Amino acid sequence: MATERVKEILSWYRSDNPGTLTNLARMLNYGKLAGTGKFVILPVDQGFEHGPARSFASNPAGYDPRYHIELAIESGCNAYAAPLGFLEAVAADYAGDIPLILKLNNHDVLQDEKDPMGAITASVDDALRLGCVAIGYTIYPGTADRRFLYEQLQALTLEAKEVGLAVVVWSYPRGSALSKEGETGVDVTAYAAQIAAQMGAHIIKVKLSTEHVEQPEAKKVYEKYSIAIGTLPDRVKHVVQSSFNGRRIVIFSGGAAKEDAEAVLDEARAIRDGGGFGSIIGRNSFQRPRADALQLLDSMIKIYTGEIK
Amino acid sequence: MATERVKEILSWYRSDNPGTLTNLARMLNYGKLAGTGKFVILPVDQGFEHGPARSFASNPAGYDPRYHIELAIESGCNAYAAPLGFLEAVAADYAGDIPLILKLNNHDVLQDEKDPMGAITASVDDALRLGCVAIGYTIYPGTADRRFLYEQLQALTLEAKEVGLAVVVWSYPRGSALSKEGETGVDVTAYAAQIAAQMGAHIIKVKLSTEHVEQPEAKKVYEKYSIAIGTLPDRVKHVVQSSFNGRRIVIFSGGAAKEDAEAVLDEARAIRDGGGFGSIIGRNSFQRPRADALQLLDSMIKIYTGEIK
Amino acid sequence: MATERVKEILSWYRSDNPGTLTNLARMLNYGKLAGTGKFVILPVDQGFEHGPARSFASNPAGYDPRYHIELAIESGCNAYAAPLGFLEAVAADYAGDIPLILKLNNHDVLQDEKDPMGAITASVDDALRLGCVAIGYTIYPGTADRRFLYEQLQALTLEAKEVGLAVVVWSYPRGSALSKEGETGVDVTAYAAQIAAQMGAHIIKVKLSTEHVEQPEAKKVYEKYSIAIGTLPDRVKHVVQSSFNGRRIVIFSGGAAKEDAEAVLDEARAIRDGGGFGSIIGRNSFQRPRADALQLLDSMIKIYTGEIK
Amino acid sequence: MATERVKEILSWYRSDNPGTLTNLARMLNYGKLAGTGKFVILPVDQGFEHGPARSFASNPAGYDPRYHIELAIESGCNAYAAPLGFLEAVAADYAGDIPLILKLNNHDVLQDEKDPMGAITASVDDALRLGCVAIGYTIYPGTADRRFLYEQLQALTLEAKEVGLAVVVWSYPRGSALSKEGETGVDVTAYAAQIAAQMGAHIIKVKLSTEHVEQPEAKKVYEKYSIAIGTLPDRVKHVVQSSFNGRRIVIFSGGAAKEDAEAVLDEARAIRDGGGFGSIIGRNSFQRPRADALQLLDSMIKIYTGEIK
Amino acid sequence: MATERVKEILSWYRSDNPGTLTNLARMLNYGKLAGTGKFVILPVDQGFEHGPARSFASNPAGYDPRYHIELAIESGCNAYAAPLGFLEAVAADYAGDIPLILKLNNHDVLQDEKDPMGAITASVDDALRLGCVAIGYTIYPGTADRRFLYEQLQALTLEAKEVGLAVVVWSYPRGSALSKEGETGVDVTAYAAQIAAQMGAHIIKVKLSTEHVEQPEAKKVYEKYSIAIGTLPDRVKHVVQSSFNGRRIVIFSGGAAKEDAEAVLDEARAIRDGGGFGSIIGRNSFQRPRADALQLLDSMIKIYTGEIK
Repeated sequence: MATERVKEILSWYRSDNPGTLTNLARMLNYGKLAGTGKFVILPVDQGFEHGPARSFASNPAGYDPRYHIELAIESGCNAYAAPLGFLEAVAADYAGDIPLILKLNNHDVLQDEKDPMGAITASVDDALRLGCVAIGYTIYPGTADRRFLYEQLQALTLEAKEVGLAVVVWSYPRGSALSKEGETGVDVTAYAAQIAAQMGAHIIKVKLSTEHVEQPEAKKVYEKYSIAIGTLPDRVKHVVQSSFNGRRIVIFSGGAAKEDAEAVLDEARAIRDGGGFGSIIGRNSFQRPRADALQLLDSMIKIYTGEIK
Repeated sequence: MATERVKEILSWYRSDNPGTLTNLARMLNYGKLAGTGKFVILPVDQGFEHGPARSFASNPAGYDPRYHIELAIESGCNAYAAPLGFLEAVAADYAGDIPLILKLNNHDVLQDEKDPMGAITASVDDALRLGCVAIGYTIYPGTADRRFLYEQLQALTLEAKEVGLAVVVWSYPRGSALSKEGETGVDVTAYAAQIAAQMGAHIIKVKLSTEHVEQPEAKKVYEKYSIAIGTLPDRVKHVVQSSFNGRRIVIFSGGAAKEDAEAVLDEARAIRDGGGFGSIIGRNSFQRPRADALQLLDSMIKIYTGEIK
Repeated sequence: MATERVKEILSWYRSDNPGTLTNLARMLNYGKLAGTGKFVILPVDQGFEHGPARSFASNPAGYDPRYHIELAIESGCNAYAAPLGFLEAVAADYAGDIPLILKLNNHDVLQDEKDPMGAITASVDDALRLGCVAIGYTIYPGTADRRFLYEQLQALTLEAKEVGLAVVVWSYPRGSALSKEGETGVDVTAYAAQIAAQMGAHIIKVKLSTEHVEQPEAKKVYEKYSIAIGTLPDRVKHVVQSSFNGRRIVIFSGGAAKEDAEAVLDEARAIRDGGGFGSIIGRNSFQRPRADALQLLDSMIKIYTGEIK
Repeated sequence: MATERVKEILSWYRSDNPGTLTNLARMLNYGKLAGTGKFVILPVDQGFEHGPARSFASNPAGYDPRYHIELAIESGCNAYAAPLGFLEAVAADYAGDIPLILKLNNHDVLQDEKDPMGAITASVDDALRLGCVAIGYTIYPGTADRRFLYEQLQALTLEAKEVGLAVVVWSYPRGSALSKEGETGVDVTAYAAQIAAQMGAHIIKVKLSTEHVEQPEAKKVYEKYSIAIGTLPDRVKHVVQSSFNGRRIVIFSGGAAKEDAEAVLDEARAIRDGGGFGSIIGRNSFQRPRADALQLLDSMIKIYTGEIK
Repeated sequence: MATERVKEILSWYRSDNPGTLTNLARMLNYGKLAGTGKFVILPVDQGFEHGPARSFASNPAGYDPRYHIELAIESGCNAYAAPLGFLEAVAADYAGDIPLILKLNNHDVLQDEKDPMGAITASVDDALRLGCVAIGYTIYPGTADRRFLYEQLQALTLEAKEVGLAVVVWSYPRGSALSKEGETGVDVTAYAAQIAAQMGAHIIKVKLSTEHVEQPEAKKVYEKYSIAIGTLPDRVKHVVQSSFNGRRIVIFSGGAAKEDAEAVLDEARAIRDGGGFGSIIGRNSFQRPRADALQLLDSMIKIYTGEIK
């Protein structure tokens, strides 16, 4: 039976059908964090997003699609997320072993674009036939043609919810109108989380943000109301508040691989202390040697359970 | 049974099917203004349109989606309007408690665009499954690609009317061809209302306009026929006249939050005195502390009933 | 806001979408019994089911479709149910005045059939365009071809729930395999209620039953476990228990018109005392003169509120 | 029974289905010109095309959608054409009173565009549900993206003809490639009529043209063959000839309102004398006081019947 | 990670998509028998199939739909199977708590039919929206119109497999052509299992069979080859062999409630010893008091694990 915390989280999604609730519960009830309401998800779409060598050369075992799902299972993650090819390569052999999230759009970096735009690379039908619990989709708030991405997400969300799947939205501010710091500015990050929530995402993935405030109109408000954004936990708290006052699951990614594992864990501590729901950790896990990655993920999970301060 | 005034208003929409009439009646018969033919609607899409901090920092209770629907119910509004996420977060728990309007398109301000264009963020199917009485859609007359918005509205309007939903159009002039004052110029506002009416809107939402006349060809006419536009009630009256001579429901928004509640109420008086159908009041309600907002909405409603002069 | 009792009832239907919950709430929150969780519904399909003279000659005002909806509104019923023609004749003029239930199938008596089978006479699309809150459908458990009726109901139920309508099932045992008393035998009635509940009905309408037990296998059980069926309240209680232990709304019809109003009211008392959710009362209301019908319905409603013992 | 002339006209459209022929016949057989094969049509889309004050301030009764259909009926026009909103506002109350043409696209003047492009504002489905006899669509031959308009018209024409509607095309040369005089040059007007005819229009509406010849290649031909274009009747005759040698119905509009009624009537005389099928007269009718408009329309009709020379 | 035994079982279904494998794995990996490849499933469709009193009077707690799913969860069953109504009544509140099987057809006993035929009472769409892992369907091999049932099953099986659901077939020989003993005769039971397997069932449910051999042609073969059918384990073994030599999951039901728990357990021992995959146990569990049922199910599970001989 679901824990009280899981029941509480599911109660935020009562407009969804029992199929979607079931698939949300599957993630909430799986792995070492089962029942806690916390998440560690392993996403591996970097092969498409950054190219294979940049993604896997540091730990060549990662060229093999089996490597990642096994890492996710063994480390006790709540779910494993990947594009169509990586999931097709493992879904039959590991059926039922871990909840799967199918990334429905992807973007490569073969063009240097100021306003990137992903392409649909899989469908809701694929998610069903592969036994996934959720679809994933990336939007780039701030890009010139974000409108197109929002509309694609809208259609996929409707379709996914009708067949009982959950919807995970990667909300990554980008585009010609934002400065480089602006992409991770706290105001822009909170805005990106809000947009994903308003579009009906069940789980929202954003990057950890900086103290930078990008938008002049927002800056006035942050100053006028003295919104606390000085520390990472402050900013996590603000982003969670910006996601329906914490009534939507918001998870955070740390971005590029860091050599220093402790730096990664410090981010997890900040997410925990700020009331975030967990981490989605790709490069920092699969680009490390397997033993190191398992060690790191184990420590991260223990931070979320409180076993590690 | 419907009041004579409600019956009269419904008689303007006799080409619509009884389902749409029923949903219009539900708004006309709900809240403290039930039966009067007047409207106060609470819309909360600013989280998407302006970002979360700019929308909710002044009254942080508003980060929680439950806050707004409860405010709308308790204050006695006719309806509550919001994007998909905000409605999904409350629709099951507050089923049947207040008529809901699902905003089907939204626009963020992460790009500084001269010719803004919203994105579809929800569907008519969503409106049905969430128990809404109407869809809402924003057009930006004056923008370079308004044609695209009109066509999207056309398709959604047809679909909504077939399944018995009402159509509420936010008609906000914008775009590179208009001066800043032109966006709220009385000629442009009246034109925006007319366009929404001609496209089949049941309820038209425009901003209160200024004495400014933007278009040279229009200016000649306003002068030649001495059209009264000197006072706010004059301009409300002209806009209502421009909406099928008052045979379409036109409601007005006041725009940015004003500290002075009396200024907000004066606008309501002008709307009433000019023959407008009511107010759609977002930031001026939910950005105030709850008690102040309830007080303000109560006074506004009493202005429309005539209890307050 | 919904009463605690209404919220409790709605909680039994949490697998449904908010649209369906909203339409259930509309019936629960309308009329003199609003908020109590009790129902009095006026159904008028006898013109089709029995022929016009048999239905309306005793009170010729009833030939006019406006008569019935006005009776339902004035008496304070929760809803009015009728076939397509009767609803089309009033839906526009009384839009929003009372929740409507569209009967989707009907059966005439122009053949003397042992195994009756209704025909589809309207659709879910009709229910939407006419502004109805629910579809109605009659099954005849016990007939040779009941399988066909169940499958038609299944398809309509799925379609109705997807667009946020509620489903009301008239479950009337009939057919060559049942004795005349068997049709209202308590075992058969309880079975008919169970079948409707298992097929996904939100509201189940059955006839009041007699002490007769039709099926030999059932008889053994009723005797072995000494199931109380001696009084009408006993049997109501048993039928309600047989409908998911009271977690589905079960309402009862009294059948043919009775001259003695007190006899009709005694049935309402029995329904109330047995824990039934209310009455669906057709011939006993509209075949009486209007004043008598209003008097009778008022007394019935007071029985359900407890104002009359 | 149809007159010989009506039969003759219908014979030009024998490839159309009887539904479309019936709807053409309804226009040919309605109003004071019934049976003559001549047309006077009242179109009122200026509220959308020019804005409400510019359209209706000179005769404020015209803000009310009922005004125009009543004017069309009382004056004895063959049909009334308008956008969705204006027709929805009257279609039920005046059902069957006059043939209706639903304008499916419209263009506003809130941007100063060299290459205007209308937006779809209604559909063939709307035309059916509102009881219209025809759809109307405006093309702008000469604009940069006219191809898009032609393709939209193509799709709508096919759809309309399948369901038995007639197609009326407003063919108005515009765009960056034409000089201002070129827009009404006789070569360009004849070309615009030909394009509409080739695209399958049943009724073609063009402006009266001038002696100006815009296109050099055309100029050579007009001169070489001494095509008569010196008088207005000459040019009407040439345009009718350019529309399948008179085997398509071509009607003419006079454009902006003229104070001098006699000038308007002179144009009708020219249309008649050149073999045109009639007038489509908007601003010159509804921008006059009602009595004047009725007088003018009556005279115009008598010009077409020959009662007035 | 799946056990070797679970992997082996899944390897028999390699033609299925990973979605179906995932849902099979969910049943194989849930409950006290998780990982063993053995099954105990709680099915509760008797309310529909036999009527409510016959099903629930002996243990009235079972009238409540929550009772059964809680029993299934607490006892550690692999899955819970029920018709639409029973699942809708619990699916949202118990989302993710146990794998669900939606029975898509049901049959009542209100007619005494020699050739019974169930009706479709739910759909594959329902199974998805309710979060089920499988559909269930009952065929009656031996009935006159079994062809119709087979064809309905065929269509549903195809649809279910496309969306990643598993298919559970109840294969119950019945019909006018079989003697009463023939319905459970070992030849007929083995034949019924084979038919279900050939139709693509993932899990086959048959009754325990008797030594009776119904069909003369079969009898010759059983005798000629001295097929061992003398003991219950013999017959289980033969039926499992008849289901693709044990490469399909075959589970057995015991039928009517037995007072003697030990008799029920003896059947489980026979199923285990004959190589059966487990029990589907309805009336023998939910018709007992809760404590007794839990005790019985626990013992049964321990028989399958070998903890009890």
